[in-house]
Amino acid sequence: MQQIFNDAMLNVRMSPIVAISEEVRKKSADFTRETGKQFILFQRGEIDFPTPQHIIEAAKKAMDAGHTKYPKSGGEDFLKDAILTKLRSYNKAEGLTRDNIVVTYGGQEALELAFNLFAGKRGAGFAPCWSCVLENFVPYARIDFIEVPLEHDFSINMRKLEETLKTVSFFYLNTPQNPTGKVFSEDEVRRVVDLCVHYGVYVISDEAYERIIYDGRSYFSPLSIPQDNIIGTYTLSKTYSMTGWRLGYLVTRNSAVAKLIRLGDYTQTAGVVTFLQHAAKEALENAPASEASLALMVGEYQKRRDALVEGLNQMKGLELWTPEGAFYVFPDFGHFIPSDLEPQKRSLYIYERLMSRGVATVYGSCFGKHFANNIRISFSTTPANAIREGLMRIAEAFA
Amino acid sequence: MQQIFNDAMLNVRMSPIVAISEEVRKKSADFTRETGKQFILFQRGEIDFPTPQHIIEAAKKAMDAGHTKYPKSGGEDFLKDAILTKLRSYNKAEGLTRDNIVVTYGGQEALELAFNLFAGKRGAGFAPCWSCVLENFVPYARIDFIEVPLEHDFSINMRKLEETLKTVSFFYLNTPQNPTGKVFSEDEVRRVVDLCVHYGVYVISDEAYERIIYDGRSYFSPLSIPQDNIIGTYTLSKTYSMTGWRLGYLVTRNSAVAKLIRLGDYTQTAGVVTFLQHAAKEALENAPASEASLALMVGEYQKRRDALVEGLNQMKGLELWTPEGAFYVFPDFGHFIPSDLEPQKRSLYIYERLMSRGVATVYGSCFGKHFANNIRISFSTTPANAIREGLMRIAEAFA
Repeated sequence: MQQIFNDAMLNVRMSPIVAISEEVRKKSADFTRETGKQFILFQRGEIDFPTPQHIIEAAKKAMDAGHTKYPKSGGEDFLKDAILTKLRSYNKAEGLTRDNIVVTYGGQEALELAFNLFAGKRGAGFAPCWSCVLENFVPYARIDFIEVPLEHDFSINMRKLEETLKTVSFFYLNTPQNPTGKVFSEDEVRRVVDLCVHYGVYVISDEAYERIIYDGRSYFSPLSIPQDNIIGTYTLSKTYSMTGWRLGYLVTRNSAVAKLIRLGDYTQTAGVVTFLQHAAKEALENAPASEASLALMVGEYQKRRDALVEGLNQMKGLELWTPEGAFYVFPDFGHFIPSDLEPQKRSLYIYERLMSRGVATVYGSCFGKHFANNIRISFSTTPANAIREGLMRIAEAFA
Repeated sequence: MQQIFNDAMLNVRMSPIVAISEEVRKKSADFTRETGKQFILFQRGEIDFPTPQHIIEAAKKAMDAGHTKYPKSGGEDFLKDAILTKLRSYNKAEGLTRDNIVVTYGGQEALELAFNLFAGKRGAGFAPCWSCVLENFVPYARIDFIEVPLEHDFSINMRKLEETLKTVSFFYLNTPQNPTGKVFSEDEVRRVVDLCVHYGVYVISDEAYERIIYDGRSYFSPLSIPQDNIIGTYTLSKTYSMTGWRLGYLVTRNSAVAKLIRLGDYTQTAGVVTFLQHAAKEALENAPASEASLALMVGEYQKRRDALVEGLNQMKGLELWTPEGAFYVFPDFGHFIPSDLEPQKRSLYIYERLMSRGVATVYGSCFGKHFANNIRISFSTTPANAIREGLMRIAEAFA
């Protein structure tokens, strides 16, 4: 096939996380039959809250009103205005207009288009890095992608970063970060952006988890820095439990870039479903209803995070940094991996051991080259009792 | 910008048809003030029928049932099964399975992905050719695209076609065709596909207008030919008045190709909105309700076509082939273009003359290099009285 078909498509892979979920589906019936227990699903990035009813009603109303015709390329003005208000009030991003915004199919299409803007070029991002970047956006846009490893505690090595920025066209910055739950501080974000500006590097700022923040911390949005080189990507998926609605948007002060992204979006899909844009407006603008749902969800996530962190911290030898946002913990299990294992077996050792005890996680090498001893534990779909049971099994596995 | 950004994105253009609609918007207020009359909109591909209510209700029901979570990559099984049934009964395409289908955002994403499969390669298609192919899919996938001109009466020059097929990776075949309304006969389709098979060329078969067929003719779907080299693209937009729902699908017997397209679709958007797939299933499976709406719409279009063709045929010197499908007429106005005009002015002469009399059409050069004397007149949003008025103005313009 290589000779006829696009190499970029041939190099794309389905996320290993999908393969893990497939494996769980196959094994879980046997596991339940043998043990009488359920598999604990720590591998998924799905959300177990329903979409708030007021958003669903807005979609229905828009359908009934006949908003079922071709969408306006790049997004309807009423939705762009709602986005601008949200960007001002939450992201503290001023001086933007409708021309700076492109409505997309989720954060996914916003990111895919942003990477595609740099097709064939060199880019970089911190490791560990969201698997979809490595398995999808990078090969699809034929990017030569350099992983800049975070330190063991997920702090930034500014020297390494600066060396890399000298050689790339863009830097992918994800905050709050998947898979670590790290929320980069204002100081860290400013230093990254300053370096990028200095070296003429674009910043692709993936802020998918911007509203999933713990301990009442405030969030510093890279987009609040008034620089033309920042391309922010956003989604309604996590904030409003709308993963299946595929609603997101891209924002950049560089109107020429926004125009190119709009042309890409138009070419790919001819725009986002008209009446869903009305639902997006409702989600963004009906603050009383949306904020109440969000507070409820984040409150529940915080409880789950606290339970997980407390439980894992009792395991001697395990290294853990408390996530400040998103819904993942990314502990280092290196202490529990036999030192005489071959490298290939090392990377799956913890994952397989947990899998055999009915605990599904994601192994560290899904997130790049540098954190093979870590395991991603997602708590986005695991209620308190599943977390307790999961913690028990993890402790037993390495007792 | 050339140095940093993807050339493919820089080369994409918004459709000239969008620019025409913008121009109409600007001019129509003045026109109405000066003449007391409305602009006649013959330029659009939109549909003026509402989405049938049973389809809207299915979407609402799916939302209420909580089908708002991440979609399954490539499409949900229940929708693929509905598509398979439709392909068997309408397209006479046998021997297909779920693995041969990818659900997409409209025919648009299906086509964009199909072209992307051949990124950087050479392809061909008949001229005149849908503008979006020339302005969007071709540059976005960096295709070297060869236009094979149809004869003056829109028949195929098989010799020219064969010469071209010796040099390309794929051939774009659109039936019923935009902008001519030509429906290729079974014999024509078989000869095109046979030649493609002979020369190892893939066929991208764009069947967006498959159900908009006049005079009770039957439609021969290229996909009914059991060949692995055919990639069919379909949309619910035209058949069920669902232009704004962005629902389509791609079908190919080549499962390896389907898998690549699925990866591309996943990378671009992470899949099609879950609850909308339930609406698509309803549209395809509730035959009594959907077929009644369709018959009503096609009946109305047939009346419009008949009125247009009858009116235009009364203009001496105008050459016209009666469209057998879709909702466009593509007459040749060459007789009315002064022979001493410079080439550049020739291509806009008819368009501008009609525009000055409040009639918006699309000029032939939007559809490639070979039919600059023609004008596309769309009747998808123009009721009978607008058609009568439009015909009168056209006749007056060239009296």
